[in-house]
Amino acid sequence: MTGEHIWIYDTTLRDGAQREGLALSLEDKLQIAHLLDQLGVPFIEGGWPGANPKDVQFFWQLQQEPLTQARLVAFCSTRRPRTTAAEDTLLQGILAAGTPWVTVFGKSWDLQVTEGLGTTLTQNLDMIADTLTYLRSQHRHVLYDAEHWFDGYQANPEYALATLETAHNAGAEWLVLCDTNGGTLPHQIIHIVQQVKTRFPQAQIGIHTHNDSGTAVANALAAVQSGARMVQGTINGYGERCGNANLCTVIPSLQLKLQYNCITSAQLARLVEVSRAVSERVNLAPDDHAPYVGLSAFAHKGGVHVSAVGKNPLTYEHIAPEQVGNQRRVVISEHSGLSNVITKAQELGFTLERSHPATREVLQRLKDLEEQGYQFEAAEASFELLVREVLGQRRPAFVLHGFQVHCQTQARGEGHWSSSVATIKVAVEGQELLTAAEGNGPVSALDRALRRALENFYPQVREFHLSDYKVRVLDGQSGAAAMTRVLVEFTHGAHRWTTVGVSPNIIEASYQAVAEGLEYGLAHCQPVPLSPGVG
Amino acid sequence: MTGEHIWIYDTTLRDGAQREGLALSLEDKLQIAHLLDQLGVPFIEGGWPGANPKDVQFFWQLQQEPLTQARLVAFCSTRRPRTTAAEDTLLQGILAAGTPWVTVFGKSWDLQVTEGLGTTLTQNLDMIADTLTYLRSQHRHVLYDAEHWFDGYQANPEYALATLETAHNAGAEWLVLCDTNGGTLPHQIIHIVQQVKTRFPQAQIGIHTHNDSGTAVANALAAVQSGARMVQGTINGYGERCGNANLCTVIPSLQLKLQYNCITSAQLARLVEVSRAVSERVNLAPDDHAPYVGLSAFAHKGGVHVSAVGKNPLTYEHIAPEQVGNQRRVVISEHSGLSNVITKAQELGFTLERSHPATREVLQRLKDLEEQGYQFEAAEASFELLVREVLGQRRPAFVLHGFQVHCQTQARGEGHWSSSVATIKVAVEGQELLTAAEGNGPVSALDRALRRALENFYPQVREFHLSDYKVRVLDGQSGAAAMTRVLVEFTHGAHRWTTVGVSPNIIEASYQAVAEGLEYGLAHCQPVPLSPGVG
Repeated sequence: MTGEHIWIYDTTLRDGAQREGLALSLEDKLQIAHLLDQLGVPFIEGGWPGANPKDVQFFWQLQQEPLTQARLVAFCSTRRPRTTAAEDTLLQGILAAGTPWVTVFGKSWDLQVTEGLGTTLTQNLDMIADTLTYLRSQHRHVLYDAEHWFDGYQANPEYALATLETAHNAGAEWLVLCDTNGGTLPHQIIHIVQQVKTRFPQAQIGIHTHNDSGTAVANALAAVQSGARMVQGTINGYGERCGNANLCTVIPSLQLKLQYNCITSAQLARLVEVSRAVSERVNLAPDDHAPYVGLSAFAHKGGVHVSAVGKNPLTYEHIAPEQVGNQRRVVISEHSGLSNVITKAQELGFTLERSHPATREVLQRLKDLEEQGYQFEAAEASFELLVREVLGQRRPAFVLHGFQVHCQTQARGEGHWSSSVATIKVAVEGQELLTAAEGNGPVSALDRALRRALENFYPQVREFHLSDYKVRVLDGQSGAAAMTRVLVEFTHGAHRWTTVGVSPNIIEASYQAVAEGLEYGLAHCQPVPLSPGVG
Repeated sequence: MTGEHIWIYDTTLRDGAQREGLALSLEDKLQIAHLLDQLGVPFIEGGWPGANPKDVQFFWQLQQEPLTQARLVAFCSTRRPRTTAAEDTLLQGILAAGTPWVTVFGKSWDLQVTEGLGTTLTQNLDMIADTLTYLRSQHRHVLYDAEHWFDGYQANPEYALATLETAHNAGAEWLVLCDTNGGTLPHQIIHIVQQVKTRFPQAQIGIHTHNDSGTAVANALAAVQSGARMVQGTINGYGERCGNANLCTVIPSLQLKLQYNCITSAQLARLVEVSRAVSERVNLAPDDHAPYVGLSAFAHKGGVHVSAVGKNPLTYEHIAPEQVGNQRRVVISEHSGLSNVITKAQELGFTLERSHPATREVLQRLKDLEEQGYQFEAAEASFELLVREVLGQRRPAFVLHGFQVHCQTQARGEGHWSSSVATIKVAVEGQELLTAAEGNGPVSALDRALRRALENFYPQVREFHLSDYKVRVLDGQSGAAAMTRVLVEFTHGAHRWTTVGVSPNIIEASYQAVAEGLEYGLAHCQPVPLSPGVG
């Protein structure tokens, strides 16, 4: 029923951290917890204290600087087979974390009980009952995560239901149905959640899905539509194997399409910011094609789309991008027409009139350059320099006279030894400069030689970071003698920009892209104030 | 109903190419078409000839070297408003493409007709009828893509149904329901597909979904479960904005979970190979977390999971990874690695015993090199050379002593001038040789200098064609100073092989790959007989 509240439960800090290649420091965890709190997520699972020393410290730190509104949750398993809950040291670790809320996961699948835990089906029920009763006696609110719920239910529904009933009777406030292996499809979710709802009409049901079948989000939505009132997931869908349900997709779908309430509209408008801040924090490239929050989620390429969206955004956009803090982008590509050029230039702050000759010249130069192999859709900074040039507003900070690059390698057998040296001659503010530098390879040598020429005039170049470098050979047929396209990304604090260079010679193509990148950076970034001693 | 056939329709080459940052050359398109054909995809949409010159050439080339089993499909819109189908030049372009199958897309949504096309609702019906009737009169099979179907149906169901009815009566063999903006959720798909099925019980229904709500795959499955018998999608889910339905997810879900038939089991076991070959071809990093085909899709991190999977894979795997050509990866154990090495070596004709020290040494070297950034999945020729080396069977045709590369560029303003010269010192059959060559850039100069040293001894190197060259920077954080991986592809007649080189210096990485490529070619290709005059 629409209008109802759906409780969002974030497990980025625990299940998300299971993603291959993702490692969270204590500082990362604290920062992300505060971001989630600001986003309005009501439950934040922080980790498994006791099992992980870093998590102990995390919970302790958050006792010192508590979250403003979110409930912080500690996660743990049911007690071990041959002990009691009160004597289980792992559970003592949970109590020490000091959170009013605790999530306990237990086995639902008979196979997992006998083969995984190596205990009996009855013992498993005792473990659930004993653990929950003990935690309740210590005044903890308990959520119960029914691990492998859907596989378990399909294998042995009566036993699976008995585990849930045990948890329910022992005082679990939420029964969370987990698709641990991610193999379940939406129609199965709907059927099984309905069965659970019928069996436990008074219980609050949650859903926890994984993306191994590519349906984690759809499974979460299907569960809500069948009666679940909590969704567990992670920011950007991080998680083991193929990841967890992506909360950056689940939340807007629930709220904007199914009219449930999760967070406020103002919080929802911060979704893109949170998604990108988290990916930056964990040092993973953001997924530009992610639903709702990706850089390309509202990007329009074809000329027909662009002009239609200009007239009525509904024609090619399923929601208004601002609702999630995203924005419409027009992509410049070989399919572009005048509309794309005008709209794109507008985004960059230039007003081009459709009838003005300069507008046509921009388009013509764009098409000529694309014919040669340039590609501007990923190189907006180069596009901006082109527009400035046509409008007579380009003021290059330096002019190249020429460069030389010398690479030398002596083979392994005779003692491996290698060097790359670049010499460059440029004019900077009327002065001719000849500088040289060494690098790990020809491109870094050239980059350093150019910066060396510039940095006495523009100390801020030291802050520009060459953060990505991509090469594509354009005509597969002629291999190394074909045209080479280089894309270079620079960063300066939170600002990123990309430039492009094309040449048969990879060094020249790289130079073009690096030089435009530095030029763009100098045109946009404030100079670093010189220290009094120097000034 | 299970057991039924579902027709897969691939649009990677048309809709997939709308992805921001993806640009396909003619050669890319041809290669991908052949890969899809081998995968057993029955319909391959090649592009919109007439609207795009590159696509004209693509269809012409495939008339010369046809696909073995797939139906190649040309794509176009209905005729333009104020003309007739027979006089519309765009439709003549479609006929010239010479494909027996054509997909025509038309407007279903009243808003799109009046605001987008700027014509009347009746005119739009005429355009659909006229276009399809004309193409049928030219003996083409026609698929009808109902653009914006779900938005159109929700806005004005009677008009939307009238467009479908028009297409159906005009001879469309498939009515394909498109969620063009990707905003529809599975429960809406189910409802609407059922309505269409009821209205057109004899028609064959298809589904085309986009991922803007994160449910493209679930939407496609829901449509099939409601009666659709064709699924349109792309390899790796490439496509505009957030992408299309990912066929690498849809196909295994339909086939392994819902028991429909799409392709043979042997073809399905090549899914990972095709997914990775396409991403390599378009030079986009593969999504390691993609369902079924991702590198991490069956990766087990925790010790508990590993031992449970060892006992019974069902405990943490939703399907057997081999069914899609993937493999279980156990991050902490080297046993799975050993199996990989043995299996791969076997494919190349080497018998490695599990207990033999050489087998372990291959694995150790592989792990060390992968640690440095090498990747052998796409570079089997380099893997073979590594196996030969460990087995004492590597007989390099030449030994490098060293090289120098010198590039010089004089800037545009003073007359653009550029040169690249390489000098190389190698030992070939005991003789020391010093050769030099010029090239369009440093890599081609080096390639030529090396060939110059070799060709008096091995004239067949003249036949080795450097057909592709790709560069990827491995650590985005440190930019041009990071490790650089170069993949080089050589061809000799129908034979193709790929080698890999890694270094912080792009020239060195390139040299490694080129040198291994020539060495591999010399080990595998028969010498060209010398002409009598020379012999």
